[in-house]
Amino acid sequence: MKKIEKLNLSNYGHDFLRTWDKSIDHLKATLAVAQTLRDWHRKGISPKVFTSGIAVSVFRDKSTRTKYSYAAAANLLGLEIEDLDEKKSQITHGETITETVNMLSFLTRTIGVRDDIFLGVGHNYMVDVANAADWGYKNGVLDQRPSVINLQCDEDHPTQSLSDMLHLINYFGGIEKLHNKKLTMSWAYSPSYGKPLSVPQGVIALMTRFGMDITLAYPKGYNLIPEIEAYAGREAKKGDGSFRITNDMGEAFKDADIVYPKSWAPYDVMKERTKLLKNQDDKGLDGLEHEALAQNAKHKDWTCTEKLMKQTHQGKALYMHCLPADISGVSCKEGEVDAGVFEAYKKQTYTQAGYKPFIIAAMILLTQFGEKTPNVLRSLEKRKQPIVLL
Amino acid sequence: MKKIEKLNLSNYGHDFLRTWDKSIDHLKATLAVAQTLRDWHRKGISPKVFTSGIAVSVFRDKSTRTKYSYAAAANLLGLEIEDLDEKKSQITHGETITETVNMLSFLTRTIGVRDDIFLGVGHNYMVDVANAADWGYKNGVLDQRPSVINLQCDEDHPTQSLSDMLHLINYFGGIEKLHNKKLTMSWAYSPSYGKPLSVPQGVIALMTRFGMDITLAYPKGYNLIPEIEAYAGREAKKGDGSFRITNDMGEAFKDADIVYPKSWAPYDVMKERTKLLKNQDDKGLDGLEHEALAQNAKHKDWTCTEKLMKQTHQGKALYMHCLPADISGVSCKEGEVDAGVFEAYKKQTYTQAGYKPFIIAAMILLTQFGEKTPNVLRSLEKRKQPIVLL
Amino acid sequence: MKKIEKLNLSNYGHDFLRTWDKSIDHLKATLAVAQTLRDWHRKGISPKVFTSGIAVSVFRDKSTRTKYSYAAAANLLGLEIEDLDEKKSQITHGETITETVNMLSFLTRTIGVRDDIFLGVGHNYMVDVANAADWGYKNGVLDQRPSVINLQCDEDHPTQSLSDMLHLINYFGGIEKLHNKKLTMSWAYSPSYGKPLSVPQGVIALMTRFGMDITLAYPKGYNLIPEIEAYAGREAKKGDGSFRITNDMGEAFKDADIVYPKSWAPYDVMKERTKLLKNQDDKGLDGLEHEALAQNAKHKDWTCTEKLMKQTHQGKALYMHCLPADISGVSCKEGEVDAGVFEAYKKQTYTQAGYKPFIIAAMILLTQFGEKTPNVLRSLEKRKQPIVLL
Repeated sequence: MKKIEKLNLSNYGHDFLRTWDKSIDHLKATLAVAQTLRDWHRKGISPKVFTSGIAVSVFRDKSTRTKYSYAAAANLLGLEIEDLDEKKSQITHGETITETVNMLSFLTRTIGVRDDIFLGVGHNYMVDVANAADWGYKNGVLDQRPSVINLQCDEDHPTQSLSDMLHLINYFGGIEKLHNKKLTMSWAYSPSYGKPLSVPQGVIALMTRFGMDITLAYPKGYNLIPEIEAYAGREAKKGDGSFRITNDMGEAFKDADIVYPKSWAPYDVMKERTKLLKNQDDKGLDGLEHEALAQNAKHKDWTCTEKLMKQTHQGKALYMHCLPADISGVSCKEGEVDAGVFEAYKKQTYTQAGYKPFIIAAMILLTQFGEKTPNVLRSLEKRKQPIVLL
Repeated sequence: MKKIEKLNLSNYGHDFLRTWDKSIDHLKATLAVAQTLRDWHRKGISPKVFTSGIAVSVFRDKSTRTKYSYAAAANLLGLEIEDLDEKKSQITHGETITETVNMLSFLTRTIGVRDDIFLGVGHNYMVDVANAADWGYKNGVLDQRPSVINLQCDEDHPTQSLSDMLHLINYFGGIEKLHNKKLTMSWAYSPSYGKPLSVPQGVIALMTRFGMDITLAYPKGYNLIPEIEAYAGREAKKGDGSFRITNDMGEAFKDADIVYPKSWAPYDVMKERTKLLKNQDDKGLDGLEHEALAQNAKHKDWTCTEKLMKQTHQGKALYMHCLPADISGVSCKEGEVDAGVFEAYKKQTYTQAGYKPFIIAAMILLTQFGEKTPNVLRSLEKRKQPIVLL
Repeated sequence: MKKIEKLNLSNYGHDFLRTWDKSIDHLKATLAVAQTLRDWHRKGISPKVFTSGIAVSVFRDKSTRTKYSYAAAANLLGLEIEDLDEKKSQITHGETITETVNMLSFLTRTIGVRDDIFLGVGHNYMVDVANAADWGYKNGVLDQRPSVINLQCDEDHPTQSLSDMLHLINYFGGIEKLHNKKLTMSWAYSPSYGKPLSVPQGVIALMTRFGMDITLAYPKGYNLIPEIEAYAGREAKKGDGSFRITNDMGEAFKDADIVYPKSWAPYDVMKERTKLLKNQDDKGLDGLEHEALAQNAKHKDWTCTEKLMKQTHQGKALYMHCLPADISGVSCKEGEVDAGVFEAYKKQTYTQAGYKPFIIAAMILLTQFGEKTPNVLRSLEKRKQPIVLL
C-alpha cells in the first residue's frame, strides 16, 4: 500500500488499452493494486466499492478464461455483467459506434472488449469506443466515464501480460528480482493456425521495460508486428535489460530462467488473412489455411520438450503459457509442449492464470479513481468487509 | 417528492402494459419517480431497495438499448437479470404460459417482455403473463406478485413514450410547459420494412392526454391501428390539446415545436405480415417485403431534411428519435433523416434515450410498492446510500 | 433450527452429486435448511451470506426451471451466475477438465452441472469436475473449494427428488408422516422419446430410505438402471418401508397415497442411444427413435386418467410431476396425464417445483459450510436482513 502511494498516478487515464500507453509507475501501480486485491481475497476481505453499476462486455472472439476473469473482477467490485451479443442486437442495423457505446453506458462503469481477429482493427475499435465514451461524458449524456478495458486486441493483451508479470514477481520474490532474468518468448508448433500475435507482443513490449533479458525466438518468417519488435528493442536499451531475436529455439532456451513457448501466426499470414476475412473470401481463406498449416508443419521440432527444458538455467526454467496449450499427446498429437513438461508446471500455469481477475479489477479501480485509488484502498482496508458474512 | 405524494396512486396496478391503462396521476407519478432516480444517479445516491431478487427478461425480438435499460434498471434496484432464452428452454415442449410464468417467478420481482412482431399477439401475451402471475400469487405458489413490464408490444411502447416525454419535460422546463406545444409525429422513409407501429402509437396516445397539439403525418395508406388513432383524437378533445392527421409532411413540420420523423410499416402490411408469419409462408413474406419496399420507395421524399427543419417554429424544433435512426449517407443511402440534422441533435436524442433505465426503474417501484412508493423513496432519500462507497 | 443442530453434519462433503452418497442426517439437514430458507423468504428475511462470488453453471441439455432455480438460489445467497457456454468457449480446443474447472473457479463458490443425455457419462463428468476442484484447492490455485452441484445427471436428479420430498413433508405435515405412505412411481406414455431416467431413479432411491412404501410400475422392458432398482430394494429392507416393481399401472395405483406418473426411455434404449450419439450415427438415431416411438405407442393406455385416480386411496392420492408434463389435449394429443387431473393438481405441482431454489441454496450452504451451517443460519437469523429494504 505504501508503495502504491509513492507512485505517480496522474494521467493514468480512463482506459487500459496497451501497456505502452502507460508509464512505469502506472504499470507498477496496476501490479501492486492487483496484488493487494489478490491478498485480500485469500484473507476473505471484499473490495466491493460499487453499490450498483454495469460492466459491459463485448467479445468478438471466443473466450473462456478472460470472459470469466472479467466477470469475476466486475462482481468482486460490485458490478454486474451485461454481455453485448452483437448478433442479437440492432447493431448490424448500421448504428455508429458512438451511438452503441452511449446507449450501453448510462449506468456503466466499464466496457471490456476482445477484438483480436483482424490486424489493424482491434486496437482502433477500442480507441473509437473510448472516444465515444469521452463524447458522451463531456456532453452530459453520461453521468460517469466508463473505463474501456482491452481484453485482447490485435496489438496487445495487457490483462495477460500483466498477469504473467505478477506471476513472475511472486515466483521470484519481488519486482526487483526480475532484473536481468532471462525470459525466452518462443514460437512453438501447433496443429491450428491463425492464433493472434498479441500475447508474444504483449510480453516483449512489457517485460523489456522492467530490465529483463528478453529473447524472442521464431522460425524465419514468423515475425511479429515489426513496430512492436522495434519498440521492445528501444525499451530494452533504455534500461539495463536486453532484447534479441533468434531463429534457433534450442539456442534460445539455453540458460533461460523463464520460457514461454507458444504458437502464433506469422505477421504476413495475419495480414493476408485479415484481407481475405474483410472480403469474405472463403475460398481464399481455405487456401491460406492449407498453406499456413503446411508451413507450420515444417517446424514440428519447435516444441518444448523435456530435453529442451534441461538446457535451461540449472534445468529449472519456469515454464509459462497463457493457456490453453496444445499439449502433445493430450490435446493434440503433436503440439507446443510435451505432456511431461506441462504436467510438471501445471500448478504454475494455473496460478499464473489466477492473477487475471485481480489485474482486471485493478485496472477498473485505477481507471475509475486515478490518483484517488490509494485513498479508496485505504477506506476499503479500514472497512474490512468480509466476503463471507458470518 | 412532494409532487409525488399529492398524486393518487391507488390502483396503479401490478403491471405496466400500456399508458392508456393508467390514470394521469399514475403517469405523472411514473415520470416524477423516474426524474428523482435520474437526479439521484447524477448525485451518486443509490435507490437499491432489494437485497436480492430476479428480474426475468423475455425478448422475442432483437433489442440493444431496451435490453440494456431493463438490465441497468434492475441492477440499480438490486435485482439480477435472468434472461429467458426460449430456444434453450423446454418451452417449445408445449408448456402453458401459466406454467412457464410460475416456474420463473418463485423469487422474481419483475418480468420484462418485448413481443412486437405479431399484430394482435404482443399485448395479449403480456396480459396472459400477468394473469399467470396473478394465479400463482393468489394460490400461494408465489410469495410475491412479479410486475409485468411491457418493453414493447404491438400496441404500445410505454418505456419509450415516457422517456420521450420526460425528455420533453426537461427540455422545455416542466410538464406544464408542454401545453399546446406542437409535436409532429411523422412517418419517414426507410430502406427496411416491417418496423413496429408501437412507437408512433405510444407517442400519440400518451401526449394527447397532456394538452399537447399532436399532428400525425403519413403518406396515404400508412395509418396506425385505427382504434389507437381514434383514442388519441378522443383524449385530445378532453383537454385543451388537439390531434389531427395529415398526409403532407411539409405542412406537418410547419411551425412544429417538436418533430419525431420515424418509419413504420402500414397497419395493413403488418396485418398481412402477421398472417404470413403465423402460416410460416416464406414465399408470401418475400413477396410482401418486395411489394412493401417498392411502396416505401415511392415516398423517399418523406425524409427529415435541413430544409424541412427550417420550416419549424423559429427553425428550431426539437428533433426526436427512438434510435437507431436510418441516417442518409451514414447508416443507409437514403433514410429517415439528413446526417446534418441527426448530428446537430445527437446530444438530444442520446439524452432522450438515457431516461429509459430510470423510467423502467420507476415502473418497477410503482408496480411493486403502489401507494407506498413515496414512503419508500423517503426512506431511500434518508438512507442516502452512495453508489460509489468510499 | 434445533432439529438441524442435532444432526450429524460431519462428512457432508464439498459436493452434492447423488442422494445415495449422503447419510440420512445429511439429507434431513438439506431438507431442514431448505425449509428454513423457504420460510424466511415468505417472511422477507434474506440469507445473503456472500458479499461477492461466482456461481458457474454448465448446462449440457435444455433447462428452464432448474436453470432458473439455480440462478435464483445463487442470487439469494449473494452469488452471480456465470454461464459456461461450451460453444462460445475455447473448450472444444482439447482443453482438459482439470484446466477448465480451475480456470472458472478462481472466485467461484459453486459449479452447477446438468449432464443427463449420455448414460455412463453425466455422473462421471461431475466426479471429474469435483476432482479438478479438489486438485486446484489442494495446490493453492484456488482460495476456496467450489461446491459441485448435480442439476441432473444420468443417474440422479437430487435437486428434484429432494424438492419432491420437501413437498410431501409439507403436504402431509411432517417427515414422520411419510412412514408407510404408499407412493407409486409409474411410467406413463409420451409422444416423445429419450427422456432421462434420473427422475424415477432419484425418487425410488431417496424415498425408500425414509420408510415409504414405493411401487415402481412400468411396461415390461421399461426398467431403470438395474443397480439403482436393486439399491432401492436393499434400502427399503433396512427400514420399515418397502419396494416392489409391477408391470400393471392400474394395480399400482390402487390405494396409492401419492402417484408420480411420468415417461422415461427404457434403460436398453438409453444404452443404445448413448452408443449411437457417441458415434454420431444420425441414421442409427433416427431408426432408434422410430422404433422406440412405435414401442411407446403400444402403451398409450399407461396414462393417468381421472378414472385411475379414483382407484387411489380414498380417490384422493396426491398427483406429482417434475414438469413439464405431457398433458393429453393440452400439450399433446395423448400424453402422460388427463387435462382434468393435471388441472386439479396444478397448484400442488407448481408448489412442488417452488421448493427447488431453496433445496439448491441449502445444498450450497451445506457444501460450503458443513458442520458450521447451523451457526451460519443462527447468525443470519439474528441479523434479520430484509429482502426488501424499506
